[in-house]
Amino acid sequence: MLLQEKADQAHTLLASSALDCWLTFVRETTVTPDPGVDLVVGTDVTWPSAFLLGRNGARIAIVGRHDVPNVRATGVFHDIVSYDESMRQALVDVLHRLNPQHIGLNYSIDDKTADGLTHGMWLMLNDLLCGTPFVERLTSAAPLLSTLRARKTCNEIERIKAAIATTEEIVTLTEAQLRVGVSEAAIGAFVHEQFRSRGLPSAWSWESCPIVNTGPESEAGHGQPRDDLFIAPGHLVHMDLGVQQDGYCSDIQRMWYVPRSGENEPPPEIKHAFAAVIAAIDAGAALLKPGIKGYQVDAAARQVIVDNGFEEYKHAFGHSLGRACHDGGPLLGPRWERYGTTPDIPIEVGNVFTLELGVQTSAGYIGIEEDVVVTEQGCEYLSTPQRELTLIST
Amino acid sequence: MLLQEKADQAHTLLASSALDCWLTFVRETTVTPDPGVDLVVGTDVTWPSAFLLGRNGARIAIVGRHDVPNVRATGVFHDIVSYDESMRQALVDVLHRLNPQHIGLNYSIDDKTADGLTHGMWLMLNDLLCGTPFVERLTSAAPLLSTLRARKTCNEIERIKAAIATTEEIVTLTEAQLRVGVSEAAIGAFVHEQFRSRGLPSAWSWESCPIVNTGPESEAGHGQPRDDLFIAPGHLVHMDLGVQQDGYCSDIQRMWYVPRSGENEPPPEIKHAFAAVIAAIDAGAALLKPGIKGYQVDAAARQVIVDNGFEEYKHAFGHSLGRACHDGGPLLGPRWERYGTTPDIPIEVGNVFTLELGVQTSAGYIGIEEDVVVTEQGCEYLSTPQRELTLIST
Repeated sequence: MLLQEKADQAHTLLASSALDCWLTFVRETTVTPDPGVDLVVGTDVTWPSAFLLGRNGARIAIVGRHDVPNVRATGVFHDIVSYDESMRQALVDVLHRLNPQHIGLNYSIDDKTADGLTHGMWLMLNDLLCGTPFVERLTSAAPLLSTLRARKTCNEIERIKAAIATTEEIVTLTEAQLRVGVSEAAIGAFVHEQFRSRGLPSAWSWESCPIVNTGPESEAGHGQPRDDLFIAPGHLVHMDLGVQQDGYCSDIQRMWYVPRSGENEPPPEIKHAFAAVIAAIDAGAALLKPGIKGYQVDAAARQVIVDNGFEEYKHAFGHSLGRACHDGGPLLGPRWERYGTTPDIPIEVGNVFTLELGVQTSAGYIGIEEDVVVTEQGCEYLSTPQRELTLIST
Repeated sequence: MLLQEKADQAHTLLASSALDCWLTFVRETTVTPDPGVDLVVGTDVTWPSAFLLGRNGARIAIVGRHDVPNVRATGVFHDIVSYDESMRQALVDVLHRLNPQHIGLNYSIDDKTADGLTHGMWLMLNDLLCGTPFVERLTSAAPLLSTLRARKTCNEIERIKAAIATTEEIVTLTEAQLRVGVSEAAIGAFVHEQFRSRGLPSAWSWESCPIVNTGPESEAGHGQPRDDLFIAPGHLVHMDLGVQQDGYCSDIQRMWYVPRSGENEPPPEIKHAFAAVIAAIDAGAALLKPGIKGYQVDAAARQVIVDNGFEEYKHAFGHSLGRACHDGGPLLGPRWERYGTTPDIPIEVGNVFTLELGVQTSAGYIGIEEDVVVTEQGCEYLSTPQRELTLIST
């Protein structure tokens, strides 16, 4: 069972970390979910709750009375303490029992998936522990959480692969719908129908997944498909989509070209741009292996784009992929302030990344995105890479 | 449009608050959603983003390049500043322009719907504002946010009503499925099918909504319907459910009794318990009006239960209902530590609450939950109250 597997992994990481205890401190997780809860706890809670993993193997949950059955059902926590009016005494008692010197909490400036603790819950915890020695021992669990999140188990990789396979199947079905006169919004609606009929949530916000762009007027980014832009001869058609299946996400971008009358291949400008995008992805993929840092991988891909005379893409070359579409851990991105330290985290076996970038052309946006897993030797594609610019028959 | 309406309401509240500016500071809102974003921003963002409402009427968004189209599309923010590598300069410039003395942030110990700021984002904001006068001017926006959330507009109340009407329709359809030998899990699956066919999310976690209990062995709480408990003669059948429709939730509990052979009404113990539950709800509803405090309302209902010889319910008599099933603002609950100050917030016109409680009997759990809105004179039922214990024909 996946929760159990990740909890075991967390204990292994704890043993070699500076922490004695990892404490997830949450409430009302349907309103303010903590990504750490998905990973190890596996059920929502309503009242303020503390989930503790100790270096000694302890797994203790302190939860409100009505949350007990669900926490018991997951089987991850051996020891479940229930309360009614306040968890104060139970929490202090448990901490005295464990006596941790370094208590890791789910907060991080850099990694949003290690940052589920709200500031109000931070203040509440400080209040609950006021007057105890533990209030001075609180620190960030981000290094542990980021690694736990990023070092995918075989079962996690299988789930990501399955989500990608579903997405590629949807792409094939969608390709058959592409013809002159169809709007971006109609393509988006078709993809949504495919998601819905399979009972799958989109990998990111429903409204912006898929992203659909046809022709040069369509703005690349996270925007919604437009009902006033229609596929026309001479257009590039671009789609960025992903699903969430069994809790894990896919994220790929695919491209088509609509020939003008008399064209039997894309014009030279488009061929050149497409080739540059593929070459950039190849350059990044060639570098990606355990021990390298994400900014180095990003720089290699970025250089190819610049060398080919295009404007640099204004995002990272690749992000982690997992329970979240933008998952935690290392980033294959430039050392921009907004990315914090994530481009400097060394890459490990089992990390799963997107490889993605795009350039603007006179026929529209060209963007390709693949999904890969890091192996001992380098990286392996989890998606079936798009190597040719597919023509839409008109 | 609802977002616009709530943004206008926020400006009105700002004018009479101690704050000069309300700042929502978020990133990757599909991973760590902030309830304040749902209320006023109305779209997800990926990169670190700042949404500022100023006392002077300013509405400024600072967002990453790729988030601009979606933020523009909602029409709430007049002034959208875009960035690529870091928002630092843009944020400091905007704050110098507004020069607020008190900047309210989304954090709160007491109100989870006013507590969307993560601790990591709090640290990031302090870092971004380091060396500016603004770092000393950060405070909690909880009073504003709680009131904004709790003071429902007519359009919000209409949406809640519609969600309740759908839920009551589903209860009627489910009632027709109740007969001896049907498992809790089968009832749960039927309700899920009703949710799914209408394309509606559950009001709380899918696995635990509906809660279904048949007979005395079934544990009341947030647990999942069991596949080893079956409706039998002499059982009470209890269901707690709600949907999320157009962004707003319903939450009701309904009850049935399965007569034993020869019974044409519930046994006296059950009739007494059901009457006590109804009388307690009536006692609370009779007190509920603008100006009263939630703990007073809770105490009135609680007293009826105790006077009738039952054990006190271990939760609040009523919670706010809105975008979240457990919505923000005042609570009709006891002054227990875990409820913080929410039982002491004065009730206002436009507040929407559940009224709910239950008792344990030898035939199972009896719980009833209604939804009401506070008016000038008192409160009005939004649900159609259950006043009789319905018998299931066997």
